[in-house]
Amino acid sequence: MEALKQRIIQDGRILPGNIVKVDGFLNHQVDTKFVGEMADEFAKLFDISKVTKILTAEASGIALAAVCSYKYGIPMVFAKKAKSDNIEGGLYQSAIFSYTYKKKVTLICAKEWINSNDKVLIIDDFMANGEAMRGLLGIVEQAGAELVGIGVAVEKGFQHGGDKLREDGYPVKSLAIIDSADENGFVFRED
Amino acid sequence: MEALKQRIIQDGRILPGNIVKVDGFLNHQVDTKFVGEMADEFAKLFDISKVTKILTAEASGIALAAVCSYKYGIPMVFAKKAKSDNIEGGLYQSAIFSYTYKKKVTLICAKEWINSNDKVLIIDDFMANGEAMRGLLGIVEQAGAELVGIGVAVEKGFQHGGDKLREDGYPVKSLAIIDSADENGFVFRED
Repeated sequence: MEALKQRIIQDGRILPGNIVKVDGFLNHQVDTKFVGEMADEFAKLFDISKVTKILTAEASGIALAAVCSYKYGIPMVFAKKAKSDNIEGGLYQSAIFSYTYKKKVTLICAKEWINSNDKVLIIDDFMANGEAMRGLLGIVEQAGAELVGIGVAVEKGFQHGGDKLREDGYPVKSLAIIDSADENGFVFRED
Repeated sequence: MEALKQRIIQDGRILPGNIVKVDGFLNHQVDTKFVGEMADEFAKLFDISKVTKILTAEASGIALAAVCSYKYGIPMVFAKKAKSDNIEGGLYQSAIFSYTYKKKVTLICAKEWINSNDKVLIIDDFMANGEAMRGLLGIVEQAGAELVGIGVAVEKGFQHGGDKLREDGYPVKSLAIIDSADENGFVFRED
């Protein structure tokens, strides 16, 4: 998505350690008008007509998923990050390692909200090593639901989480793939 | 908002300890079509035309705020919950006590995204004792921004956080105020 690449160049920041910040328009302040354009792009990449549920993870994926959900007229579910090991029953659980928090985090989702009749589109704002995405895929699998696709706004290609998922056969589509982000600026993968 | 009260009666659950769960349509699974109707209600209660920024707190307020933001064409900001005491500079910070997590939590917001020129509408999905709302108000105050209003979807009236804010002169509007939730079901405050 050319407009997203331009927006990343304009408003994105690169911090030491190849950290990419897009918190001016995507995941702290959110330009929901622009996010609506991203939703339109996802609608070109996936067969939205068959999707029954949009799934994302708290917290930063929620705004993007909510706008997609609203525009498509499909309910969304956000998986929660369990705050303790004391997790009640009736939940799908996916343990992941969070590089952001440098610890194990468990994504949880009440079984009531996704089941084997659902056709799920996973939407997330960001993908690096793909750990959070593996967690969401675990929830879809535990539910016995069908995966329609995985839509990511910004993928850090140089951390290869997306590439590994594609190698494993998952239908991952990212609106912008950053192949390098350093003192020389951003380099994007060709579409 | 009559439709919200009916939806709470239909889909809400009351757990021991007067805990109210509306996670089937508002803050786990989200019916964004219905949330869009809530956004329309808020637009009747506040002068949206003067609002420059919508502010909420992660995670459960984000979906509602995102739909409001998208419908009104106004950017949103979500305050984050700091995961450690090691908080970087350039941030507004509001310490609150989280009854959900039974510990002190600090709401943080980068100074870049709200400033003294902003006219802020705070939106949140839920209010009980009002601690999280006090935290958001602290951010607005630190920014020197103008508060246009506080819009809440579901207020637990029997925990009095909203009443105290109204006594303090804050323009709080809740779409549904639950005055009791126990084995006898829900009782709502009259509009």
